[in-house]
Amino acid sequence: MAEDFTVTAVGHVESPLTDRASAPKQGPEGSPEAWLVFEGAVLPALEGLRPGDRVFVLTWLHLSPRDVLRVHPRDDPAVPLHGVFATRSPDRPNPIGLHPVEILEITGNRVRVRDLEALDGTPIVDVKPVLTCAPPT
Amino acid sequence: MAEDFTVTAVGHVESPLTDRASAPKQGPEGSPEAWLVFEGAVLPALEGLRPGDRVFVLTWLHLSPRDVLRVHPRDDPAVPLHGVFATRSPDRPNPIGLHPVEILEITGNRVRVRDLEALDGTPIVDVKPVLTCAPPT
Repeated sequence: MAEDFTVTAVGHVESPLTDRASAPKQGPEGSPEAWLVFEGAVLPALEGLRPGDRVFVLTWLHLSPRDVLRVHPRDDPAVPLHGVFATRSPDRPNPIGLHPVEILEITGNRVRVRDLEALDGTPIVDVKPVLTCAPPT
Repeated sequence: MAEDFTVTAVGHVESPLTDRASAPKQGPEGSPEAWLVFEGAVLPALEGLRPGDRVFVLTWLHLSPRDVLRVHPRDDPAVPLHGVFATRSPDRPNPIGLHPVEILEITGNRVRVRDLEALDGTPIVDVKPVLTCAPPT
């Protein structure tokens, strides 16, 4: 049977993006610079991160419906419905966002990044270094 | 203030790997083939996935302590402590695993994959196509 777990926000996004309809669908598609603002309690977890590092930011896409299992990719009704696990739609059973970004600056609990399409106020749940490379699709 | 959210397992891993100490630290480092077994309720979310696709499997690393903020990378005491956000340690405030795998076979609610280092029984929380490419590190 399905099990539940509790995710706790470790910070949040500060971004000029405030509206899902106008936000880029993927980070490199015109995202403005944004700040990751971390809770003081997790500051030791940031040690070792440096400007120039590429990391995945994992977010909780708090505005996304969780009961959507199929979507038209990129909201294009001309594209046949796909299962959400075959798309990057933010609508999915567990709305975890996966955002590859580049770190530009680290100041205390604030990390400035490039290529983040998450909206202002989006909770951050994890950060991981980018390790792997797969062919672009 | 920190916010909490509820993650619900959408399936689980079936793998010969049963012991964290002997599991590979990254998927391509000798992982056996494994099965992703999904709950029937999310089957429509799999539509469009095909053998040969590369996807990220997101898991909940249910055996990991959540109060660890700094680790010796790759459990090597000779490497100085790093913040967990600068490592791929499974020990972190929200123990979400991020596993790039290749799909080998899809049979109903069961998906056979290559390169998954998650242990048998690990809950699955999401699947996303791999879109991006960054230099290997």
